[in-house]
Amino acid sequence: MKFTTYMEERRDLFNNRLTALVNGLKSPEQLKSSIVYSIEAGGKRFRPILMMAAFETFHHELDKVFVPAASLEMIHTYSLIHDDLPAMDDDDYRRGKPTNHKQYDEATAILAGDGLLTEAFHLIAATPLLKAEEKVFVMKELAKAAGPEGMVAGQMLDLDGEHKSLTIEEMNHIHLLKTGQLIRFAVRVGAYLGGATPPQIEALDDYATSLGLIFQIQDDILDVVGNQDTLGKPIGSDELADKSTYPKILGLDGAIRHKLEVMEKAKEALRQANINNGILFEIIDYLGNRDH
Amino acid sequence: MKFTTYMEERRDLFNNRLTALVNGLKSPEQLKSSIVYSIEAGGKRFRPILMMAAFETFHHELDKVFVPAASLEMIHTYSLIHDDLPAMDDDDYRRGKPTNHKQYDEATAILAGDGLLTEAFHLIAATPLLKAEEKVFVMKELAKAAGPEGMVAGQMLDLDGEHKSLTIEEMNHIHLLKTGQLIRFAVRVGAYLGGATPPQIEALDDYATSLGLIFQIQDDILDVVGNQDTLGKPIGSDELADKSTYPKILGLDGAIRHKLEVMEKAKEALRQANINNGILFEIIDYLGNRDH
Repeated sequence: MKFTTYMEERRDLFNNRLTALVNGLKSPEQLKSSIVYSIEAGGKRFRPILMMAAFETFHHELDKVFVPAASLEMIHTYSLIHDDLPAMDDDDYRRGKPTNHKQYDEATAILAGDGLLTEAFHLIAATPLLKAEEKVFVMKELAKAAGPEGMVAGQMLDLDGEHKSLTIEEMNHIHLLKTGQLIRFAVRVGAYLGGATPPQIEALDDYATSLGLIFQIQDDILDVVGNQDTLGKPIGSDELADKSTYPKILGLDGAIRHKLEVMEKAKEALRQANINNGILFEIIDYLGNRDH
Repeated sequence: MKFTTYMEERRDLFNNRLTALVNGLKSPEQLKSSIVYSIEAGGKRFRPILMMAAFETFHHELDKVFVPAASLEMIHTYSLIHDDLPAMDDDDYRRGKPTNHKQYDEATAILAGDGLLTEAFHLIAATPLLKAEEKVFVMKELAKAAGPEGMVAGQMLDLDGEHKSLTIEEMNHIHLLKTGQLIRFAVRVGAYLGGATPPQIEALDDYATSLGLIFQIQDDILDVVGNQDTLGKPIGSDELADKSTYPKILGLDGAIRHKLEVMEKAKEALRQANINNGILFEIIDYLGNRDH
């Protein structure tokens, strides 16, 4: 199955569950409204669907993976709300809609982010569908990936690195923390809950690390050669913002070559995990060749 | 033992552990520095010490309770950092020192708060001193108490309620969420880990709810009749800020009478839990009679 087809099917299933979860919150009206707003602002749901794909590589019946996938999307959404704040990236729009603090106000946006981050752990701790040991594994991985040695560290370094010339190693380090950690979490937890063996999980960890890089390299490439209409945002914005990007450091051809190498590495990692075909392979090509 | 003596002894033990934990973080320099800054800014450590007191009512050897107590203080500290932000309460000083965003900057303060909140869960998930079932209990209680139906809801309602005339029920509701939930968490988890029976935990829940109210009523009373030097902050600031307070609604005598009633209720709850003397009793008198 092509990953785009898989993604559409799983997205509908997932969105139904996720929407029900946030609409069930008993929070003050303004807080709940702003949480629901950002959750329903949409997006591709790439991370939770990646978790489902890793899970389904080993196991059928998706029930067990929905709550961790919803937690993951909540963490991703909180990070976008906080990153968009005036003190951070100061963005007024996201996916064509006003950002949370523009639609509501800054105090509400800070609290919506804090609320989503905390609720992500509550969901996992409270679900009847996972055993205590599974919950502890998932929450430990999530807190490590999203915390001050993971995603939050990446955002700090990203802010520090603005308007500086970074080496390719520094850039990789930032991306692996800022976006790579949640992608690793998605794959590791999906595989673990699906029943992968520990060596398979370790090989899939390399796969996920490569996926994170492919995602970022293609992002940078599209900002140079993408189509503004397909992309849904202006191209050349990295250049304008004087950001360190793969095409800037390696040249456009060099960046494309680097991407192809990392795609090969990701496929090799899957074979190491005794996975020789299927949806996880499709994801590599999807991420490396996407036009938006 | 007087609670002030108990508090001093436990505070030293606790601070050593807490400081070691945050200093062990492998985070970017600026992020780690701002986390350590707010953690070491001090404070009474009332919440973690209350958890220890509930624990020691049932069990010796404090080892098991340090990590949940540290997580609790991290959550409390994150909430102060975010509450102090310009978009929220806009405070420049806390306990005589610049607030996190004044000492660093707003972006760092937001990330330090996010980092502390996430690390609180990581600590619990990763400790070897608790069983999986205990970890799940603690994390579920923590996420519920601190999340969008708990403390975060309280902060939202508190911001909404500024410059409005609130009824005593509305005011109680806000305080029970904003400060009461973490106090309940402290007592419930301390008692649970110490080995209290479920009926004892329920009775102690009533005790903790009363403690939260005593704490707040005395806060409001001190803002009217306190001594500026002992208190370490100007008195009359609630009046100036046009805040709804217990003395404002009930009169000063009415507020004192109400406090004494709630103190009696707290003692009754302890007796319900078959606790007839000891440090949890001392805490009621300490909170109700404190002058700072």
